[in-house]
Amino acid sequence: MSEPYLPTLITATPEEGFQLALKLSRLAVKFTQPSAEVRDRLRPDYAENADSLTAASQVVAINFQTVAQANDFWR
Amino acid sequence: MSEPYLPTLITATPEEGFQLALKLSRLAVKFTQPSAEVRDRLRPDYAENADSLTAASQVVAINFQTVAQANDFWR
Amino acid sequence: MSEPYLPTLITATPEEGFQLALKLSRLAVKFTQPSAEVRDRLRPDYAENADSLTAASQVVAINFQTVAQANDFWR
Amino acid sequence: MSEPYLPTLITATPEEGFQLALKLSRLAVKFTQPSAEVRDRLRPDYAENADSLTAASQVVAINFQTVAQANDFWR
Amino acid sequence: MSEPYLPTLITATPEEGFQLALKLSRLAVKFTQPSAEVRDRLRPDYAENADSLTAASQVVAINFQTVAQANDFWR
Amino acid sequence: MSEPYLPTLITATPEEGFQLALKLSRLAVKFTQPSAEVRDRLRPDYAENADSLTAASQVVAINFQTVAQANDFWR
Repeated sequence: MSEPYLPTLITATPEEGFQLALKLSRLAVKFTQPSAEVRDRLRPDYAENADSLTAASQVVAINFQTVAQANDFWR
Repeated sequence: MSEPYLPTLITATPEEGFQLALKLSRLAVKFTQPSAEVRDRLRPDYAENADSLTAASQVVAINFQTVAQANDFWR
Repeated sequence: MSEPYLPTLITATPEEGFQLALKLSRLAVKFTQPSAEVRDRLRPDYAENADSLTAASQVVAINFQTVAQANDFWR
Repeated sequence: MSEPYLPTLITATPEEGFQLALKLSRLAVKFTQPSAEVRDRLRPDYAENADSLTAASQVVAINFQTVAQANDFWR
Repeated sequence: MSEPYLPTLITATPEEGFQLALKLSRLAVKFTQPSAEVRDRLRPDYAENADSLTAASQVVAINFQTVAQANDFWR
Repeated sequence: MSEPYLPTLITATPEEGFQLALKLSRLAVKFTQPSAEVRDRLRPDYAENADSLTAASQVVAINFQTVAQANDFWR
C-alpha cells in the first residue's frame, strides 16, 4: 500500500462519507491480514453468515460516527 | 444502488431519525453482501434468534447516536 | 405502530431517560422482528442467559449515552 | 423499584461515578430480567467465565463514559 | 478496596492515561468478580485466547476514549 | 517496554493516525498478554478467521475515533 490510502476524512456528501466508513473498516482488516488470498478465502465465512454481517455493520457504524463528526454531519 | 441512498443525516423528527438509523444499519449489510437473494435467505437466522436481534439493536443504537447528534437531538 | 412511538428524546429526569433508553433498545428489535409472537417466544432465550443479559445491558448503555447527551445529562 | 433508583448522574468523585456506572449496568439487567431469583441463579455463569467478565467490563466502560462526561470528568 | 482506587482521571502523559484505561478495565472485572483466586484461575482462559484478547483490547479502547477526553487528549 | 510507547496522540496525517489506532489496539493486547511467544502462537487463530478480523477491525475503529478527535479530524 504505497499509494496514499487515507488522504482525508472530509467528504463532499454523506454517501461518500459512508463509503469512507466502509473503506476504514476494510483497511483495518487488511492491516491485520495483509494476504489478499486469505481475505478472499474467508469472505464467504462472513458474507453468508447473518451474525457476521451484523458485526461488520457495527464496525461501519463506528467508523461512520467518526467520519460524520469530521464533516460536522454535512449540515 | 444508482439512486441517492443517503442524501442527508438531517430529519424532521426523532422517529424519522430512528428510521434512518435502521436504514444505515441495513446499508452496511447491503454493501457487504450485495445479493438480495442471500440476504433474504439469511433473514430467519437472525430475526428468530434472540442474541442476533440484540446485536442488530446495538448497531441501530450506534447509528442512532450519529443521527441524533447530527440533528442536535431535535432539541 | 401508527401512534407516535418516539416523540422526543427530552425527559424530565434521569430515570425517565433510562426508561427511554430501554424503549429505544426494544424498538430496534421490534422493527427487525415485527412479530410479537416470535419475540415472546424468544424471550426466555435471553432473559435466562447471563451473556444475553449483558449484551442487552450494553445496548441500553449505548442508547442511554444518546439520551443523556440529549438532555445535557440533566445537569 | 418504587424508590428513586437514578436521581442524578452527578457524583462527587470519580470513584462514586464508577460505582454509578456499575449500577447502571446492573439496572439494565434488572429491567430485562426482573426476577432476582433468576439473576442470582445466572450469576456463576458470568462471574466465573473470563469472556463474560470482559463483556460486563465493557458495559461498565460505556456507562462510565456517560457518567464521566456528565461530571465534566471531575476536572 | 478501602484505599482510593480512582482518585482522578487526569494524567500527566498519554502513557499514564493508557495505564489508567487498563486499570479501569480491570476494576470493573474486580467489582463483578471480587475473588482474586477466581480471577487468577480464569486468567489463562482469556490471556491465551485470541478472541478474548481482542475483546479485552476493546474494553481498554473504550476506557481510553474516556481518559483521553478527560485530558483533552494531552494536546 | 522501557522506551516511550505512546508519546502523543497527535499525528501529521490521517494515515499516521490510523497507524496509531492500530498500535493502540495491539498495545492493549500486549499489556494483557506480555509474552510475544504466546501472541505469535495465537496469531493464526484470528488472522485466518473472518469474525476475529471483524472484531479486530472494531477495536481499531474505536481507537481511531479517539485519535481522530485528538487531531480535530485533521481538518
